[in-house]
Amino acid sequence: MNAAQLFGHIRHKQSFLCVGLDAEISKIPAHLQHMEYPLFEFNRQVIDATHDLAVAYKPNVAFYECQGASGWTQLELTIGYIRKHYPDILVIADAKRGDIGNTSKKYAETFFSCLNCDAVTVSPYMGSDSVLPFLEYPGKWVILLALTSNQGSDDFQFMQTHHQERLFETVLRKSQHWGNTDNLMYVVGATHASVLVKVREIIPDHFLLIPGIGAQGGDLEEVAQYGINKQCGLLVNSSRAIIYADSSLRFAEVAREKALEVQQMMKEMLERRRLVDS
Amino acid sequence: MNAAQLFGHIRHKQSFLCVGLDAEISKIPAHLQHMEYPLFEFNRQVIDATHDLAVAYKPNVAFYECQGASGWTQLELTIGYIRKHYPDILVIADAKRGDIGNTSKKYAETFFSCLNCDAVTVSPYMGSDSVLPFLEYPGKWVILLALTSNQGSDDFQFMQTHHQERLFETVLRKSQHWGNTDNLMYVVGATHASVLVKVREIIPDHFLLIPGIGAQGGDLEEVAQYGINKQCGLLVNSSRAIIYADSSLRFAEVAREKALEVQQMMKEMLERRRLVDS
Repeated sequence: MNAAQLFGHIRHKQSFLCVGLDAEISKIPAHLQHMEYPLFEFNRQVIDATHDLAVAYKPNVAFYECQGASGWTQLELTIGYIRKHYPDILVIADAKRGDIGNTSKKYAETFFSCLNCDAVTVSPYMGSDSVLPFLEYPGKWVILLALTSNQGSDDFQFMQTHHQERLFETVLRKSQHWGNTDNLMYVVGATHASVLVKVREIIPDHFLLIPGIGAQGGDLEEVAQYGINKQCGLLVNSSRAIIYADSSLRFAEVAREKALEVQQMMKEMLERRRLVDS
Repeated sequence: MNAAQLFGHIRHKQSFLCVGLDAEISKIPAHLQHMEYPLFEFNRQVIDATHDLAVAYKPNVAFYECQGASGWTQLELTIGYIRKHYPDILVIADAKRGDIGNTSKKYAETFFSCLNCDAVTVSPYMGSDSVLPFLEYPGKWVILLALTSNQGSDDFQFMQTHHQERLFETVLRKSQHWGNTDNLMYVVGATHASVLVKVREIIPDHFLLIPGIGAQGGDLEEVAQYGINKQCGLLVNSSRAIIYADSSLRFAEVAREKALEVQQMMKEMLERRRLVDS
């Protein structure tokens, strides 16, 4: 999927919502917990209930790995289910990988060839040759960490460099030339929406994946104000506020209600900017 | 295992060798490739042949994940085998993880509780709260990326900051206070041995994990000259130069010969510095 196709799906669904599939055994409804593949069953119901409201799903790999081989199987089943039933939805493996070249090549093979994801999140710390192996897959995306939504982002990402800019700005400035607007997006934490102005000065045209709406407290209106570009250019993620909104038999229905609330706000934001027909 | 215990094993084996278990289906001997668990069988034979020469084993998780659920099972089997038969050997999951707090907590659970590793490599980019959940396990270690052995380390790690130091120095200076010398080591690439002087100015007492000996071209003598401290303070990794030295039925025997060559050099270095009895 390239950027124009992604924008096509955003226009069609009037939504730039990404639903984070961070399924945890202890948090999913009790009636699912004793199934053979409880995380997959939970995800499947969330996906079926929200697929027309979301343009992307983002399983965070940590929540599957901690279930061992069965967790990995449930990650495969989840991605396979989306691929089969909703092929227009972008699947992001939130894995935050990055290693020396021959090892990043293995991670790229894992997430793009074996799991058939569209995108994977990658850490920039090890530099260009840790990221380039992921960029060799046509139609696939690297989503590079620039500015994350956690408190710890202050430790290094906001540090001033000798270029009179902060580290996350250097990451954006340098790395944008490793790929292009059709294969490279950035993670920019919504809890720092004011810095989106600076981000858009450096990379006006790239898509941004914005975590931190909902449980992490980011503000959607502010994100849209400073982050939207002429192809929307935003994917805004919500995980816990949608998938764990209810823990009864009605959990998927309530997840849909929460996703719909977000989608309706997004629709209005897109209409106001004439990115979709009102 | 704390630092004193690790130094005890180094003295006993007269070795600070870490063997990287980066097993790949296409590179292991042909006679193993069609077994049910070929990576585990390869590892098992390498481990049996080298366990008295190595103080640590380091499977890189990328090479297991790319085999899906079976790869994860083989990683579990490999770690379980070392635990059962050679309980004094440090097991490092080379995973280069790091995410927001609740997610890092899941990764820590995976590598420390489920897989029962002693140590995991972690990326510093997301800051303190992405690292601290790993430091909450008594007896376990975080091995934080400071300076990596790949070319891409030039992109950000060597960047000057406004503190008149390079980013990897800032990472060392700040992060050393997140843990202590009994639960925090650092990755320092051997291809930059001259900068070890600077590293030892900032963290004289921490253990360092040095990749890049062998296939990546680092120089063991130089590493020892600038990196050794009063508790040795070094784990030097070699992967491909040992495990893929031979691809015949004799592969494990040849792996032992290669490991023995390195151990003999290490023994001499430790003796010369009176860290072991000669």
